[in-house]
Amino acid sequence: MAEIFKEIPEIKYEGSVGTNPLSFKYYDANKLVSGKTMKEHLRVAMAWWHNLCADGKDMFGEGTANKSFGAEPGTMAHAHRKVDAAFEFMSKLGIELYCFHDLDLVPEADDIKEMNKRLDEVSDHILEKSKETGIKLLWGTANLTRNPRYMNGAGSSNSPEVFCFAAAQVKKGLELTVKLGGTGYTFWGGREGYDLLLNTNVKLELDNIAALMRMAVDYGRSIGFNGDFYIEPKPKEPTKHQYDFDAATAAGFIKEYGLEKDFKLNIEANHATLAGHTFQHDLRIAAINGFFGSVDANQGDSLLGWDTDEFPFNVYETTLCMYEVLKAGGFTNGGLNFDAKNRRASYTYEDMFKGFILGMDSFALGLLKADALIADGRIDDFVKERYAGYDSGIGANIRNRTTSLTELAEIAEKLGAPKLPSSGNQEGLESIMNQVLFG
Amino acid sequence: MAEIFKEIPEIKYEGSVGTNPLSFKYYDANKLVSGKTMKEHLRVAMAWWHNLCADGKDMFGEGTANKSFGAEPGTMAHAHRKVDAAFEFMSKLGIELYCFHDLDLVPEADDIKEMNKRLDEVSDHILEKSKETGIKLLWGTANLTRNPRYMNGAGSSNSPEVFCFAAAQVKKGLELTVKLGGTGYTFWGGREGYDLLLNTNVKLELDNIAALMRMAVDYGRSIGFNGDFYIEPKPKEPTKHQYDFDAATAAGFIKEYGLEKDFKLNIEANHATLAGHTFQHDLRIAAINGFFGSVDANQGDSLLGWDTDEFPFNVYETTLCMYEVLKAGGFTNGGLNFDAKNRRASYTYEDMFKGFILGMDSFALGLLKADALIADGRIDDFVKERYAGYDSGIGANIRNRTTSLTELAEIAEKLGAPKLPSSGNQEGLESIMNQVLFG
Amino acid sequence: MAEIFKEIPEIKYEGSVGTNPLSFKYYDANKLVSGKTMKEHLRVAMAWWHNLCADGKDMFGEGTANKSFGAEPGTMAHAHRKVDAAFEFMSKLGIELYCFHDLDLVPEADDIKEMNKRLDEVSDHILEKSKETGIKLLWGTANLTRNPRYMNGAGSSNSPEVFCFAAAQVKKGLELTVKLGGTGYTFWGGREGYDLLLNTNVKLELDNIAALMRMAVDYGRSIGFNGDFYIEPKPKEPTKHQYDFDAATAAGFIKEYGLEKDFKLNIEANHATLAGHTFQHDLRIAAINGFFGSVDANQGDSLLGWDTDEFPFNVYETTLCMYEVLKAGGFTNGGLNFDAKNRRASYTYEDMFKGFILGMDSFALGLLKADALIADGRIDDFVKERYAGYDSGIGANIRNRTTSLTELAEIAEKLGAPKLPSSGNQEGLESIMNQVLFG
Amino acid sequence: MAEIFKEIPEIKYEGSVGTNPLSFKYYDANKLVSGKTMKEHLRVAMAWWHNLCADGKDMFGEGTANKSFGAEPGTMAHAHRKVDAAFEFMSKLGIELYCFHDLDLVPEADDIKEMNKRLDEVSDHILEKSKETGIKLLWGTANLTRNPRYMNGAGSSNSPEVFCFAAAQVKKGLELTVKLGGTGYTFWGGREGYDLLLNTNVKLELDNIAALMRMAVDYGRSIGFNGDFYIEPKPKEPTKHQYDFDAATAAGFIKEYGLEKDFKLNIEANHATLAGHTFQHDLRIAAINGFFGSVDANQGDSLLGWDTDEFPFNVYETTLCMYEVLKAGGFTNGGLNFDAKNRRASYTYEDMFKGFILGMDSFALGLLKADALIADGRIDDFVKERYAGYDSGIGANIRNRTTSLTELAEIAEKLGAPKLPSSGNQEGLESIMNQVLFG
Repeated sequence: MAEIFKEIPEIKYEGSVGTNPLSFKYYDANKLVSGKTMKEHLRVAMAWWHNLCADGKDMFGEGTANKSFGAEPGTMAHAHRKVDAAFEFMSKLGIELYCFHDLDLVPEADDIKEMNKRLDEVSDHILEKSKETGIKLLWGTANLTRNPRYMNGAGSSNSPEVFCFAAAQVKKGLELTVKLGGTGYTFWGGREGYDLLLNTNVKLELDNIAALMRMAVDYGRSIGFNGDFYIEPKPKEPTKHQYDFDAATAAGFIKEYGLEKDFKLNIEANHATLAGHTFQHDLRIAAINGFFGSVDANQGDSLLGWDTDEFPFNVYETTLCMYEVLKAGGFTNGGLNFDAKNRRASYTYEDMFKGFILGMDSFALGLLKADALIADGRIDDFVKERYAGYDSGIGANIRNRTTSLTELAEIAEKLGAPKLPSSGNQEGLESIMNQVLFG
Repeated sequence: MAEIFKEIPEIKYEGSVGTNPLSFKYYDANKLVSGKTMKEHLRVAMAWWHNLCADGKDMFGEGTANKSFGAEPGTMAHAHRKVDAAFEFMSKLGIELYCFHDLDLVPEADDIKEMNKRLDEVSDHILEKSKETGIKLLWGTANLTRNPRYMNGAGSSNSPEVFCFAAAQVKKGLELTVKLGGTGYTFWGGREGYDLLLNTNVKLELDNIAALMRMAVDYGRSIGFNGDFYIEPKPKEPTKHQYDFDAATAAGFIKEYGLEKDFKLNIEANHATLAGHTFQHDLRIAAINGFFGSVDANQGDSLLGWDTDEFPFNVYETTLCMYEVLKAGGFTNGGLNFDAKNRRASYTYEDMFKGFILGMDSFALGLLKADALIADGRIDDFVKERYAGYDSGIGANIRNRTTSLTELAEIAEKLGAPKLPSSGNQEGLESIMNQVLFG
Repeated sequence: MAEIFKEIPEIKYEGSVGTNPLSFKYYDANKLVSGKTMKEHLRVAMAWWHNLCADGKDMFGEGTANKSFGAEPGTMAHAHRKVDAAFEFMSKLGIELYCFHDLDLVPEADDIKEMNKRLDEVSDHILEKSKETGIKLLWGTANLTRNPRYMNGAGSSNSPEVFCFAAAQVKKGLELTVKLGGTGYTFWGGREGYDLLLNTNVKLELDNIAALMRMAVDYGRSIGFNGDFYIEPKPKEPTKHQYDFDAATAAGFIKEYGLEKDFKLNIEANHATLAGHTFQHDLRIAAINGFFGSVDANQGDSLLGWDTDEFPFNVYETTLCMYEVLKAGGFTNGGLNFDAKNRRASYTYEDMFKGFILGMDSFALGLLKADALIADGRIDDFVKERYAGYDSGIGANIRNRTTSLTELAEIAEKLGAPKLPSSGNQEGLESIMNQVLFG
Repeated sequence: MAEIFKEIPEIKYEGSVGTNPLSFKYYDANKLVSGKTMKEHLRVAMAWWHNLCADGKDMFGEGTANKSFGAEPGTMAHAHRKVDAAFEFMSKLGIELYCFHDLDLVPEADDIKEMNKRLDEVSDHILEKSKETGIKLLWGTANLTRNPRYMNGAGSSNSPEVFCFAAAQVKKGLELTVKLGGTGYTFWGGREGYDLLLNTNVKLELDNIAALMRMAVDYGRSIGFNGDFYIEPKPKEPTKHQYDFDAATAAGFIKEYGLEKDFKLNIEANHATLAGHTFQHDLRIAAINGFFGSVDANQGDSLLGWDTDEFPFNVYETTLCMYEVLKAGGFTNGGLNFDAKNRRASYTYEDMFKGFILGMDSFALGLLKADALIADGRIDDFVKERYAGYDSGIGANIRNRTTSLTELAEIAEKLGAPKLPSSGNQEGLESIMNQVLFG
């Protein structure tokens, strides 16, 4: 089959000196970083939807990019052509993982049987390419937001018929995930929320979402899915409020409904910032709850109130992300899914590659800098020292829960006024960070 | 003792026709609304801090209001004078409840023993006034934010000595709450959070906060406190991130640490909006988690990014608040604490009263309108009908968890394309709301 | 031709008592309010784009509403059918004005000649309907955002060819406006801005936008257009930054480029709030600059960071809008264009009508309440008194610019410490507002 | 006089390798960068208020830092001690400029005569130190926000008496500026705005502010002040709305009132972001209006809604700032005033130095990277090429205003559909930026 990105060569690591825009300047796949290759650390994945489907359409304008890849959009021929494009694209960039929704793969059919037939056909094609190239699925999912029937949500829909349709899609999504060797299955509840609280039964909706997840676990395990289920939090957009608001809320939900054995979180940078948190914050919250799973690697614009899904370029953020990833022990089933899209005015094939080069280089820098930050040790030492008071004495009793208000108040009485805690040294630590980043 | 607000008469309900600014236009304490008086429904409380202590000081300027009440600020004489002012103020407005932090009552002493002595003296005075007037404590708390020692938090401080001091204050706070007949004790974690994630051990800090709460419950119950403990969520300010971000996060925390038997939530309007939620949303989340407790009644400015603590005047918001309160069964131990302050340029004694008149009238309107909305029935009927599909058939099976993906997918296959859910009717419901509000 | 909204009767004013959702409860077209009818005050207009074109599509899903009106979308037959729908819709609601972009009227053609031919044909149809019904154009405009060629703006495009195409559309837009009796022509610069400042020549772009406007004025006046040109400010979305950020910025631009004889502002509620202002604020700024022109009547959600274009229901906001409109002398060429759309889950014909009923009732209430607020007089009197110091003495000298720092400093020296200004009485004024609103 | 920061040595440039926190890693004062020393490029200034007065007090807590410098706060002895501290501090850091408000220098007196006497005394002391050290004033200003009398603003106060007092302070501020060799005088309108639009006469207030500025120019020029006047925009905080919202608004104001010969802008990073702009944006807007003046160098937190005034550490932002500064020709009368304060938990003398080290190192990096970005040339070349269409042909006619809608529409007719503009290459440019930053 014909090469699609004909003008684009294989993208190679050429170091940070040259000016070839179609080369990696920092992403050096096989470079060893603390015992693993960069590739193993980052586990980069391509998102089928943005890269092969999104054409720059926004609420105020038509698409700017041509993603027909030589076939008629909306046909099965086009679906197959996207498979070719995907594997050529990933191969040229050295990407070994991808993610998809069912609706990214094939044109939608009203009838679930017809839909599943199309999915079978295209996933056969993908499987074949996967065998040729070794490229595998990171995680799969079902698109439960696009079709009008999901206007009030899927698991949270007020219509049981719609719920059934969602269940059917999730079932097929799990089957495809197993078929394609995926290690994860994601729930992003884009319409699991409300626009008007006055017409919404929140409790019933939450219960039903959990029921759908529970059934998905039961079915997934029954067909041999051994990977992780993920909830991907997002606070709002498209709805006024989405139930999986942020990592803390989703963690509470997982525990409330007894899903903690099977579920982890997929943290997206831009979703965290829309919720008023840093990306690092939501990663930390996931980790301390035992739910660190996977990452949607992109970047938002903190002056804008919607999901911009930009390719990440801010190395502060990629460094702090990788710092949390390394501290959490690195990825196992998860990875860095570039849920990112070119800006609307960057509409060429070359731009598609430049987007991933930017993102992968930025995360390569992030990995190197995070590793250096940990190796440097000054920040970790500071933190250890900062809480040393809880390692022994009354501090340890507080930690061990072997004291009481009465005992502590007696100590306070003896202290008179306690000393101020030692300085937080924020400016000093930020200087260390810059020193590590800028060398 | 001398009258303080000499120019201000008792504030009476005069109906909505006149122009006397020192009268209630809607708050009619003994008016019956669905079987309870307005006073019983609303359970209005005065916040000692804003009303008797805050003088309009902000980050860019000195106080504008004189709250010496004829005594030298910073003295015990002043502390007593504030008690006189408080009871005169509440009596003139017909307010029967109040809230305080320890530091609102007396000038701070470095030594906890001296501090407690001062608190004993002033609380004796309060108790005496309380017996005279029948005015009681709604809830008490300890101020664990103001003193520099709490720069890194109280329960979350990196210093065990500071933790001890916090414990001593909480212990005394509980004792005062019991002494003054309070039915609640509140934890607002104003500095339980971080400014820099890099220097913070989040997990340890959360564990320690929970330890402090656990000890507070144990001690409180041991001295006869039968009321509710509250967490008051706030997402940020003063710190970059506070752990009790919002109702959902605090609910998750309460359950994670097994505090659900003793803790409920105190929802503040302006804190909810700072977290990106409506006031109504956080009330609903509290309620469906079984944690509906008490309310800090104020109003923020959604175009401003800090806690403005305005007296509530938006009747949409007071109506939706009271709608949730009524749906949750009304207040038991909780109430409406006016955690609100005059605008800085409203600095006279008259303004103090006008602030409460505005707030109480706005909530009186809110109660009447919420009651009318429920009596009207159109909205509730709409919601009931909207989810009726889950009352029987496959919908009920989903609710009862007696089905599976396989069964649901089979139904979906038979459906072909499901019907769209019925219209959400948002504009229609908003018209009903306006009709109920504007008659 | 066949009736389209068959199930929907003419919408009549039935007063605020009944429960017929398809009636006006407050909008009583011919009711006199301070000497003009409600209809004359409000000058309600329908936006062709939202009402006849938008189908609920958003960034995460397909359209939910069927707006084919029995014809094939994308054909001229459909274009004509939309004209029928528009006039039936407006007639049933008693709306006498409408607004459009060129691309709302006809399917787009790549060739401007073909495009103009289509516009001629459909505008003939509109003109005929207009003669039958008396319904007229409020303002016209050209859509310079949707076509991919405008990805970098129209007047601000880096491509002179694209600029030419924009000029051709504006020319035709002016001709259509004159043909259909429009009294306004609007520039909304949806892509006149940037996504990345580093690749943008801001000065050149601003100059070019002004050049386009200048040419539009010259051409418009040459073909007999006597109405107002409007800039409609919006701060962002779709771009990161739009040059017409808010009323103040647009007013500065108009003056900088000498366009003040011909240009006024079209203020949109939701655009003002996205810029961090209240709707009232941007109306006031327009008025004091002499640029009060027209209004896009809708409502945003201040907790969301994008343009939600909701039908207005908040009567505080409609009242404060009409307060500014009345103070500015009322509309002349301008009006209230309902640039609003149904929520995505309100997708039926009935919902289309309910949206306008909500909006028109809310503005009817706003007009009545604003008129009552002015009639009440307490707020205006307070403001007059508040600034009375500038009516005479040194205050007047400051106003007249007949004093100097030296003279004023001498006065200050004599004053010792000046008295505090009198209280701003914010809470008192807010109580008056509620009293006027809730009666 | 006794050394104050005894433990702190002179801070020297030691390169980026070592771990001495009390050294510069990037700020190398005399290093040549494109023909000027780093020191000459950056013109670093110390803000008297944050560095010598602010003690960490916030709305929720008392100060944490001791800034008595061995004297009793509130006394003239303390005022003198702050002068000693200031010059020792600046000398140790190699800072050669400072900024102040009148109230930063001396304890406030109610009487302007007494106040001025104190200012004379302390400014004599400063002048003496200045002669010893060569350290000079960058700009002076009067604090017209702190005293309760300015609750409704200074120039915008509703009280002419308050206006007089403001005028007296401005007069003295100008005299001190001249006395101390300042090259700038700044107006920051912290309370020139409103909290409630309903009680505000915006037009009168704007006129009066302009009158005060006009008088200030007249007086300043009469006493030999040859420097620049600055408006420092800020959108909100402390008030709900401040008139000098952002650079565009302030530029419009300057032109509206004919102040453009004397006024420029002082752009503060954190104020720009509070207005919804990037720092770079407001610098660009200042520059293209001819108002590029001076910079308040700090950093906000884009997830927080208030002015955090952090020491800048984000090298992306410092680079883009210096890029605009270099493009605007560099500072003449202006400089980089570090209007920044330590985080509240960084309360030691060492932290004071670490704050400036962080800030100066971050701007040194910014300067080096901005210079490298310009030397690299790829971005500038891209921009030049991007707009090349306007250098000749019809593009040039548009620029020269020698064409018309009619001519342009004829061209459009011939074009058929215009070509898309070339790609914006955003991801490619961001990769170049990272390459320049991270080498």
